[in-house]
Amino acid sequence: MINSLYLPELREMLATNDAAELREFCTALHPARTAEFMEGLEADEAWRVLQFADAPARTDIFGYLDRDKQISIVENCDRDQISTLIADLPHDDRVDLLNRVEPAVVEELMALVPLEERRDIQRLGAYEEGTAGALMTTEFASLPETLHPREALEELGRQSEELETIYYIYIVDEERHLRGTVSARQLVSHLGKRDKQLADLMERDLVTVEASDDQETVADRVARYDLLAIPVVDHEHHMLGIITHDDVIDVFRQEATEDALRSAGIEPLQAGYLDIHVLRMAWRRAVWLVILGLGGILTALALSSYSQNLQAVAWLMFFLPLVMSSGGNTGNQSAALIITNLTTGRIHLSDWWRIVWRELLMGVCLGAVLAIIGYLATYILLRESFSAFDALVVPITLLLVVVFGALVGSLLPLLFRRLGLDPALMSNPFVAGIIDIVGIIIYMKVALMMLPELVR
Amino acid sequence: MINSLYLPELREMLATNDAAELREFCTALHPARTAEFMEGLEADEAWRVLQFADAPARTDIFGYLDRDKQISIVENCDRDQISTLIADLPHDDRVDLLNRVEPAVVEELMALVPLEERRDIQRLGAYEEGTAGALMTTEFASLPETLHPREALEELGRQSEELETIYYIYIVDEERHLRGTVSARQLVSHLGKRDKQLADLMERDLVTVEASDDQETVADRVARYDLLAIPVVDHEHHMLGIITHDDVIDVFRQEATEDALRSAGIEPLQAGYLDIHVLRMAWRRAVWLVILGLGGILTALALSSYSQNLQAVAWLMFFLPLVMSSGGNTGNQSAALIITNLTTGRIHLSDWWRIVWRELLMGVCLGAVLAIIGYLATYILLRESFSAFDALVVPITLLLVVVFGALVGSLLPLLFRRLGLDPALMSNPFVAGIIDIVGIIIYMKVALMMLPELVR
Repeated sequence: MINSLYLPELREMLATNDAAELREFCTALHPARTAEFMEGLEADEAWRVLQFADAPARTDIFGYLDRDKQISIVENCDRDQISTLIADLPHDDRVDLLNRVEPAVVEELMALVPLEERRDIQRLGAYEEGTAGALMTTEFASLPETLHPREALEELGRQSEELETIYYIYIVDEERHLRGTVSARQLVSHLGKRDKQLADLMERDLVTVEASDDQETVADRVARYDLLAIPVVDHEHHMLGIITHDDVIDVFRQEATEDALRSAGIEPLQAGYLDIHVLRMAWRRAVWLVILGLGGILTALALSSYSQNLQAVAWLMFFLPLVMSSGGNTGNQSAALIITNLTTGRIHLSDWWRIVWRELLMGVCLGAVLAIIGYLATYILLRESFSAFDALVVPITLLLVVVFGALVGSLLPLLFRRLGLDPALMSNPFVAGIIDIVGIIIYMKVALMMLPELVR
Repeated sequence: MINSLYLPELREMLATNDAAELREFCTALHPARTAEFMEGLEADEAWRVLQFADAPARTDIFGYLDRDKQISIVENCDRDQISTLIADLPHDDRVDLLNRVEPAVVEELMALVPLEERRDIQRLGAYEEGTAGALMTTEFASLPETLHPREALEELGRQSEELETIYYIYIVDEERHLRGTVSARQLVSHLGKRDKQLADLMERDLVTVEASDDQETVADRVARYDLLAIPVVDHEHHMLGIITHDDVIDVFRQEATEDALRSAGIEPLQAGYLDIHVLRMAWRRAVWLVILGLGGILTALALSSYSQNLQAVAWLMFFLPLVMSSGGNTGNQSAALIITNLTTGRIHLSDWWRIVWRELLMGVCLGAVLAIIGYLATYILLRESFSAFDALVVPITLLLVVVFGALVGSLLPLLFRRLGLDPALMSNPFVAGIIDIVGIIIYMKVALMMLPELVR
């Protein structure tokens, strides 16, 4: 919800050009909160308000605005002023931002940005989206290993405006190989010790990522080692940049969203739901729906091949949705359990035999429960012509289909992992599709065996 | 995968009681890595190895062991030694750990832990799981506002062993009301300025959470404001504790897992897949399967009421799975889109009219695509008796069912949000269930209108 509490006041201040009040507005609150109150303004109004903040505060507040507002400010406001802002923005954020701005505008802006910054933007912009390189910033603290803790802290203080974080210091040799890290925490706790140098304090067993690593690898490693920031190196261990905890949190949120969309059969999208053209969105959704629709044709073919039997015993058809959905739902449950447990490292490929055994047992239990429901349903529907023996077709099918669903739902993600694919790619509709077809076949085979009136 | 690279060496060192090597093993690597190499050891072996680490390293390495290994060490090793470890562990982690240990063991340990630590454990343990209170630790830095930056850093250095983070300092008044925060970053950049006190530097516009707030609120706020730690207060703004970035990352991971399980119809579980008794797991899964099974009975009832028609035109049945799954899949897509966009704040309840309009448009596009597939399928199956007009039943139904699916899938999460419920609770099987029944009814109505041979 856009916070419109201050909008009238802000517009009033702008109209009367009330510098004192506007300056107060830009400094009194946490920059994230200031940004929240500005969401309702148009791009040019927001930019005029930001003129009353000093440069560091302006950069901070701008950084907390919604991405769409940022883009619209960059595209519509004075190029000279914007180029100064771009030079001040965190190096990782500005690359993400410029990637979404009109290319013509970016070209104009790049001509105005100082050469060194331009090179940095081009270098970071060259990394593929979703890799460590695309997440990293080049604003890290790198100090010589001969400094004492107190000198290092003083040097950090001098540099702090240009740094994304001061909480880790990276020690590199003359060829920019990463040799060690020292945390600000270590500096602070050794503040009094004049006989220690950074070289004595530094951690040499380093947790790093390579620039080409997937962002999920980055996130998992930062989470596993409880890091505030992780250094990014190339394959020769040259220090390239760092990725900080806030970017890692964003990765986790993004991955969760992507997994949710994929499991419903939609390729994840960069922009918000309302910002994508309806037809483009429809196209993305159509891909999976068509694949699943073709699966639907296969079920129709399977059913038509049993046409005679279905006409001889009409009630068989009534239970088809129950049979298919029971198998599919069980399979989805198994897949979700296996995928989440694989992701969090609670189970491993080598456990496959125990997993199969458990799913078999669970499948039998769950199948038995659903079989009781199936028997009940048959009784309700066929009261008048109820035959205790015939009515066993549905329960027996349910038992078999549920066991089959549990096995397929658990084995497919394991197979995907074995093949080096992301098990989460094996989306729920896919499992359900396989189980649907096999469910029909099992159902008809059971019916053929148990109902004498069917053609063999 | 358990890392068993060092296991034989470790066991050899234990057998020969090789103190020098074991001490080296405990200090040379990052504690997380040391913990990884120890995962394959039995609890008592691991504990014997840890005897060779000094107390802080022992606590660190223990903290990186798997939760199950930690529990088994606490339950099986010397109570006296374990109680010392408990006293040293981070305050939030030890409460989580003790919550999972046998109550009889906890009682014995608590008698051995110093009174002050015992009180802290009891206080933190009283907060309900999933709240800010249950996540927080009480080890934060609280300094008087009259200190100068340099004095504050020196004081932090003295306290640093007992602190979860030194990167924020919390300023409280005599009654422990939170008045402001100062970051270590500010201290470092004002290191040279002797005329500044903490009171001059401190941020007064604070971002806090209450102890009873849900952990999702905590995570969202930390992510939105890019914080390293967030202070937890009671409703009178007394400072109670802090929650650090690593716990927030854990919350995001946990919530992602829970959402994935819920959307497949399983209530989330605390323990790993292989650690839960098969019957208990089956019970959790059965709940949803039974509800959905009852939905299946409803579809059977719906179908049986159209029994005569289905027997008159046998091919109608063949397309039933296609019709039902097309509606269900579209509905799941819409629900996933709306839920993820609501969660990330990209759409709001007030957008409902635009959402309905877009889903209607998209439903028509997607329905049209599936209608073509449906017409194709009818042609394949009914080539011999193909009637161009009759064959329109399936495509027309598909169009209507897909539009209906898109509308239901998008409106239900909005309705849940409107009612103050978590839209993610509206799991996919639920949407699919509703769409199944309505899909059958639409299908039969269309058939009744278009096929002259059906009983009206």
